[in-house]
Amino acid sequence: MAEMSMSLDGFVADENDGVDELFGWYFNGDVVMPFSGGEFRVSEASAEFLRPVFAGGRIGALLTGRRNFDLAQGWGGRHPVGCPVFVVSHSVPDGWPRPGTTFHDDALVALEAARAAAGDRDVVVATPSLIRQYLAAKVLDEIVVSLVPVLLGRGTRYFDALGDTPVRLSDPAIVAGRAVTHLTYQVLR
Amino acid sequence: MAEMSMSLDGFVADENDGVDELFGWYFNGDVVMPFSGGEFRVSEASAEFLRPVFAGGRIGALLTGRRNFDLAQGWGGRHPVGCPVFVVSHSVPDGWPRPGTTFHDDALVALEAARAAAGDRDVVVATPSLIRQYLAAKVLDEIVVSLVPVLLGRGTRYFDALGDTPVRLSDPAIVAGRAVTHLTYQVLR
Repeated sequence: MAEMSMSLDGFVADENDGVDELFGWYFNGDVVMPFSGGEFRVSEASAEFLRPVFAGGRIGALLTGRRNFDLAQGWGGRHPVGCPVFVVSHSVPDGWPRPGTTFHDDALVALEAARAAAGDRDVVVATPSLIRQYLAAKVLDEIVVSLVPVLLGRGTRYFDALGDTPVRLSDPAIVAGRAVTHLTYQVLR
Repeated sequence: MAEMSMSLDGFVADENDGVDELFGWYFNGDVVMPFSGGEFRVSEASAEFLRPVFAGGRIGALLTGRRNFDLAQGWGGRHPVGCPVFVVSHSVPDGWPRPGTTFHDDALVALEAARAAAGDRDVVVATPSLIRQYLAAKVLDEIVVSLVPVLLGRGTRYFDALGDTPVRLSDPAIVAGRAVTHLTYQVLR
């Protein structure tokens, strides 16, 4: 499952890797959702969208690229969702790996490791370059877009340089939040 | 008001100007919506979205670029919506202008002419390069995206090379159609 917040013009970060324009919905409501590193305060609608992730234990593993890992400083060794993290990277940074955070230099090998860790639960991918690779390998089953009502103009795209298109999707499940519309699509085969 | 059908990865046409993957929702339902050149057959949800356009006379003028005009062969001189068409183009093609279809070489001059013709009704823009110019000039008040559940990978983008970003929008009015999600945003100042 891929999940990212995206501007209406397709960006998941601005040209400086900033996400302030995209992550406002995590902090614009009254429903407190604590996690290991702090808390979100979201609208009731977004809480309904997020609850399975935080309370339901739906997420069994997270796959991320090295760039995202570095930007997040490895989430301090513990991702907010509380699941093991699998980093696709050609090198292992100083001080790593740590328990719950492992490194793999091949995206598909990393996926297998993540799946083994997740068991029946979902494996989440939150890096565009990995999403592209998993789409190409036809191993991505679900695409979640938290669509934010802003045009950024430039930055990093959720979907870029995709091969083997068109990729057809189901109609989405829709949750209308505050400053975000959560759209969950199934990838059709 | 800008209005186009867009793939989830941001394209309004494929690299060959094809729109077959995007316009399926015009023909996948039971509700017949006749227009001068034929008829659409849409889902009940999409009919609710379209009815104000066709039955309500909401659209008073259409602004389009030359490329789009040429691809549509000028809609035979009569656009499906039945409103006057204003083409932004540096030259006037053979056989044109005709009554109801005029040509202007400046986007803002064309807008003024379209507004004069539309009176109290909406002026619709359906060409990405014009949408970009009107966003930059801060004269666009509403953005409608008929979001289609497909990834095209390449083609013509709805929003490309925007300046003066971020452009912030309202939360959208949402109509969930079949093979399309209609999203109507207000541009915030």
